[in-house]
Amino acid sequence: MSHSLQKSRQDHANGECRDPKSRVTVVGSGSWGSVAAKLIASNALKLPSFHDEVRMWVFEEVLPNGEKLTNVINKTNENAKYLPGITLGRNVVADPDLENAVKEANMLVFVTPHQFMDGICKQLKGKISGEVEAISLVKGMEVKKEGPCLISSLISKELGINCCVLMGANIANEIAMEKFSEATVGYGGSRDIAEKWVQLFSTPYFMVTPVHDVEGVELCGTLKNIVAIATGFVDGLDMGNNTKAAIMRIGLREMKALSKLLFPSVKDSTFFESCGVADVITTCLGGRNRRVAEAFARSGGKRSFDELEAEMLKGQKLQGVLTAREVYETLDHRGWLEMFPLFSTVHQICIGRLKPDDIVHYRDHKSLISIDGPIHLRKSISSMM
Amino acid sequence: MSHSLQKSRQDHANGECRDPKSRVTVVGSGSWGSVAAKLIASNALKLPSFHDEVRMWVFEEVLPNGEKLTNVINKTNENAKYLPGITLGRNVVADPDLENAVKEANMLVFVTPHQFMDGICKQLKGKISGEVEAISLVKGMEVKKEGPCLISSLISKELGINCCVLMGANIANEIAMEKFSEATVGYGGSRDIAEKWVQLFSTPYFMVTPVHDVEGVELCGTLKNIVAIATGFVDGLDMGNNTKAAIMRIGLREMKALSKLLFPSVKDSTFFESCGVADVITTCLGGRNRRVAEAFARSGGKRSFDELEAEMLKGQKLQGVLTAREVYETLDHRGWLEMFPLFSTVHQICIGRLKPDDIVHYRDHKSLISIDGPIHLRKSISSMM
Repeated sequence: MSHSLQKSRQDHANGECRDPKSRVTVVGSGSWGSVAAKLIASNALKLPSFHDEVRMWVFEEVLPNGEKLTNVINKTNENAKYLPGITLGRNVVADPDLENAVKEANMLVFVTPHQFMDGICKQLKGKISGEVEAISLVKGMEVKKEGPCLISSLISKELGINCCVLMGANIANEIAMEKFSEATVGYGGSRDIAEKWVQLFSTPYFMVTPVHDVEGVELCGTLKNIVAIATGFVDGLDMGNNTKAAIMRIGLREMKALSKLLFPSVKDSTFFESCGVADVITTCLGGRNRRVAEAFARSGGKRSFDELEAEMLKGQKLQGVLTAREVYETLDHRGWLEMFPLFSTVHQICIGRLKPDDIVHYRDHKSLISIDGPIHLRKSISSMM
Repeated sequence: MSHSLQKSRQDHANGECRDPKSRVTVVGSGSWGSVAAKLIASNALKLPSFHDEVRMWVFEEVLPNGEKLTNVINKTNENAKYLPGITLGRNVVADPDLENAVKEANMLVFVTPHQFMDGICKQLKGKISGEVEAISLVKGMEVKKEGPCLISSLISKELGINCCVLMGANIANEIAMEKFSEATVGYGGSRDIAEKWVQLFSTPYFMVTPVHDVEGVELCGTLKNIVAIATGFVDGLDMGNNTKAAIMRIGLREMKALSKLLFPSVKDSTFFESCGVADVITTCLGGRNRRVAEAFARSGGKRSFDELEAEMLKGQKLQGVLTAREVYETLDHRGWLEMFPLFSTVHQICIGRLKPDDIVHYRDHKSLISIDGPIHLRKSISSMM
């Protein structure tokens, strides 16, 4: 246990007055993390209930000119690598040491690629006071056969703290340029904490709404990527705006239906929020998932996603393709394939079992799936991957 | 009363067996009317419960080659003027005489510009049996200060018959080319009738869903045009996809909120249907409302809508601009302006009272409106129009 945490626990045990001001640390410093730090930093300066300083944990890198990224950020107030040209605020302090970065904070903002969250939680386990509040801006999650592994649940369980989420139609570069957008805070516990997060993130160009539905909000940020793949197929086949709108709508409906089946507390109204319909729209208009899926369809499915990812994304894997596979396995495991024709068709197109233009014929595949049977499907899929 | 209607009423009064098969007439023959006739004609041939022949009332025109439009349609099975290149089906019969076209039918499909519906209803009043079923595909309606004049209500009241509606993300040319899309049938009475309309319109590329909410479904088809104007402003200002998605979402929310205030029976779930979210998406991606509003914003609001309509639409008026004004007057009349910042901002931008980029600052206008007061606003608007 760190010295400062010991001290804070002692203070608390001794009944001493705790610091009435909140301290915020942002864990992550990619483009979205840097934008989050910028939003928070501007509010921390204005709001009397927050300390001015906002720490940002930065995974240390050496830039081509030999300088360390943290030094550059602290010297220039700019994340030269992930958000060049944008001033983060003079009160943002970059820190390459994760434990040091979080030790004074009582509000933690997690905003890293989701693959890193397991390691971060392991490193911080036992080192965070139970009174700390967390929020996850992490989009994407692993979906196991039994169901999705919510990052908010991972943080709550591993660190023993409450965790909200913030999702929405949030292209980092556009918010960095202070173009108008919205976001949704999902909370499970007290409304007061949600309001505090809303206060910390809101600016005149970034409107944040709290919603009492942490699971629904978080699932939107992952499932939308499957819809983006489907929309990319429609674009690649030049099917037009009617079809594109129909596929986006059916995708939104399946997002809602699956979220409600997995977590009965999920609310319909969540899908009218920024995290729902607006994020689906943004992701289906731009974004890499849509773009690579469009290229896949234009090739008639003859170039694999592996090949296109290597060419278009320098080998990075597409979130939507991974999530489509994982969700397919969950649906198969639970016997729900027929209830989600769009989701299951997307995966089958991705692996070459169906053709891209089957994206609009999926009604027929319901019967195909029933005839083939899930066991046969499972076999044929595992042999193809 | 026409001879045949008299006969049918006599048959009925005499307890004679009525024709067990339904006869359909499509009232209207623009591009959407012609596509509707095509969809219906293909199903009428297949379904044993319908007579093969589908009548289509055509507002007679003489084509440049001197031929009458009805003759061309009946000779070629193609609406050479409004849907060239598409075969309507050999069982579609064009008829220039409205009363003759409807006299045998017990299912009437209304699909004309909404301005024509008053005259059509006046002409048919007293000439339609109360057992006839109607459906309106008419998008757009007049909104009076007291509230919107639903076309389905107009038909019901004037003709004394039940009337459903069909709305959705339905660009006529794309459906004509059999590209996949969806639509929503809104019904107020019996589910059986709704199912019959669904059966009559559905094809593998046109998926129709019934919803017990005739007012909600019909209002979507009108209010979406205000959202399209707002989105056009965002496009014209190059604000990006985040902002565009946010404005579309806020627009959808105001559509829902206003519909529910006007008709408490309106359901939230209607706005997840094709008539709701999907039609908003289609209309905000393409379409003339969005396009002319984009040009308006690009000119910095210096070229009026009148001027742009003259140039870009040969003087035709934009539905969205008219509806925005009418809805503004309703909101003003009812004291609801502050509750609908997007709708009221769109109108104020259209008349030059606010600048195009105020579309994303409308939160501030709430206070502006309160300060100015609705009476002042009303005056300044009427003086500008």
